[in-house]
Amino acid sequence: MAEPKTQEHGPTLPPIRRQIDALANSRIREVSDLGMKLGGVLPLWFGESDMTTPEFIRQAAKTSLDDGETFYAENLGIPPLREAIAAYQSRLLGKPIAPERIVVTNSGMTALMLVMQVLLGEGDNAVITTPIWPNCIEAARIMGAEPRLVQLRMGEGAWRLDLEELFDSVDEKTKLILVNSPNNPTGWMMPASDQRALLDFATERGIWVIADEVYERLVYDDARAPSFLDLAGPADPVIAANSFSKSWCMTGWRLGWMTVPDGMAASFGKVVEYNFSCAPVFIQRAGIAALQGGEDFIGQIVADYRRNRDLVQQRLMGTGRVRMASPPGAFYAFMAIEGMQDSLAFARMLIEKHKVGLAPGSAFGPGGEGHIRLCFAIAHDKLSEALDRLITALA
Amino acid sequence: MAEPKTQEHGPTLPPIRRQIDALANSRIREVSDLGMKLGGVLPLWFGESDMTTPEFIRQAAKTSLDDGETFYAENLGIPPLREAIAAYQSRLLGKPIAPERIVVTNSGMTALMLVMQVLLGEGDNAVITTPIWPNCIEAARIMGAEPRLVQLRMGEGAWRLDLEELFDSVDEKTKLILVNSPNNPTGWMMPASDQRALLDFATERGIWVIADEVYERLVYDDARAPSFLDLAGPADPVIAANSFSKSWCMTGWRLGWMTVPDGMAASFGKVVEYNFSCAPVFIQRAGIAALQGGEDFIGQIVADYRRNRDLVQQRLMGTGRVRMASPPGAFYAFMAIEGMQDSLAFARMLIEKHKVGLAPGSAFGPGGEGHIRLCFAIAHDKLSEALDRLITALA
Repeated sequence: MAEPKTQEHGPTLPPIRRQIDALANSRIREVSDLGMKLGGVLPLWFGESDMTTPEFIRQAAKTSLDDGETFYAENLGIPPLREAIAAYQSRLLGKPIAPERIVVTNSGMTALMLVMQVLLGEGDNAVITTPIWPNCIEAARIMGAEPRLVQLRMGEGAWRLDLEELFDSVDEKTKLILVNSPNNPTGWMMPASDQRALLDFATERGIWVIADEVYERLVYDDARAPSFLDLAGPADPVIAANSFSKSWCMTGWRLGWMTVPDGMAASFGKVVEYNFSCAPVFIQRAGIAALQGGEDFIGQIVADYRRNRDLVQQRLMGTGRVRMASPPGAFYAFMAIEGMQDSLAFARMLIEKHKVGLAPGSAFGPGGEGHIRLCFAIAHDKLSEALDRLITALA
Repeated sequence: MAEPKTQEHGPTLPPIRRQIDALANSRIREVSDLGMKLGGVLPLWFGESDMTTPEFIRQAAKTSLDDGETFYAENLGIPPLREAIAAYQSRLLGKPIAPERIVVTNSGMTALMLVMQVLLGEGDNAVITTPIWPNCIEAARIMGAEPRLVQLRMGEGAWRLDLEELFDSVDEKTKLILVNSPNNPTGWMMPASDQRALLDFATERGIWVIADEVYERLVYDDARAPSFLDLAGPADPVIAANSFSKSWCMTGWRLGWMTVPDGMAASFGKVVEYNFSCAPVFIQRAGIAALQGGEDFIGQIVADYRRNRDLVQQRLMGTGRVRMASPPGAFYAFMAIEGMQDSLAFARMLIEKHKVGLAPGSAFGPGGEGHIRLCFAIAHDKLSEALDRLITALA
């Protein structure tokens, strides 16, 4: 029984919200769709390692399924996971974080969307630094709010944020300032002194700071990235979003969390109930396994990614056409390509002619055009082959 | 390292959206939290079977984990699941449904929230029949829209909807009409003739019909419930939300879907990306197993639930204090209790004094007060024991 092929949204259908019609399609998806259709393309377009989730983490989920944990659970996460996250963050930060401040979500993305729901309505605005993973911007738009974008700029071999420019973009309708550090796509890490100044400004103005810290463990020249939670106590207006995706190679599990101020978890519990109600318990058990047994794994992938980062730097500098800051964090090379006008067209050309898949810089908002993003979280030999192809294309 | 215990949302924190502050806490959660704390309570408060997900479904997820399916996947669901859902619905409806019309979500709840995001903004309203699962109402409120509630009424031993009353509540700001049939909590099923009249009205007025059909397989006096998809073609303004939770005892998996008109899936793909990006692949594999091998299981649970429904009816009628329509669908007895003024206080008393956990009717919106809801999707002997306790309480 084959129904006739799907048509465009018919003229007989009632309209949908203009904000949804206006949402950007992901340009990363646009190139990955093209590349997957063609086949034989080395994929470095997504923010995802090519490594399967470690066996001990998968085993925890399978054991939970064997134990019959297939029922509804608490909105905010099962208590053992909230406790394990709090213990992990307390260890990492060297100061106590209470389990009552942890909200478990179905991904870091979901955490950010819940933040937008709780803080943003029509007429509000959200100040967001760019280049950035575009999803942060679009989630604000879904709530009818205006994203105000403040660009990082490249200077002296590193990306920098002009705090005065950021402060100037804030007005009385600004409800939150979102900072992603370590940053996707640039690798930029916000210095602790800038975090301090931003937190002071936000506290004085009564504005929320949303810290997207999903790359906090993937740092190459320091032990870890500075966190807004280093500075913020439980009474400060900071919500830190985090994820199991990057540190433990768990992108496909859709498990994340946020750390919220005292007394905020109940409000998030309500929006969790009305968005997805709870995360699957067997996935939460995998999260506990990752937190409790995953440190050696993180050490190994950071060493691998550092070696990959240095290979990218070393080989592409030789082409003479690439400018990039060596990224101190995250797992992307975000490269300015000399003579490239249109990064989407360039990324398509790389896929079609050279079978190597990168993400166009224009996907990441203002300041992104002129660049392409390469994810180096892949096996060293595959990366080497991808670089061969890219260098041929740049010749 | 113990952080001082969580305080109320501090006065130093910036405000959150008033719509979120105003969201109701789930009264079902309120009684279940009380009951779980006390212990020894027979729990009939949730809309959940006490049966673990069948082994063959769990096995499909475990095999997928063994196969290393731990990566990002398509926004709209993996193609084999979209095809399996389309084939299942085509079989059930006896007419073709195209896979391109299927959107996979992280639960039926998530499907409804995405619908609200795509259709509702501030100033809009959504017409919703009550009593209903309260989450449908609150999801509309999160988007800043006004829920307009139209009550089902009990008459001649069955719940009925006055269509004229529903039509009268629609105005130029109405973007959608939401109908949940078979209905939680009443068991009401909307007759096909009423569905026809409603669809004609909505089509003429340019309003969306949202059909929450998660209980469509749990029907006791017919082969299946009438579906809006029986009437609506791919160009009609109907979005049908569905779930794996009830038909296959998969509440804890958080897997659902919606069937949308031609050309709508792309818009939903965007909001999927910005809410949760994709459902875990190993959970989607479990969904395929359920659809392809779950018919005998559904037949068995429907037979069990029918026997349970009849036991509830037979035993409670004898008390003289209970009025209820025998529910033709879903798995709840929604009972009017003579002399009961406050269903929440009554449900608390049942838990504290009689160790039996029911949901207060006031949780389900206008028309719910004066009732309590009992979920009979539990083992027959446990149900019998729960009825003993309830009858003692009613004596």
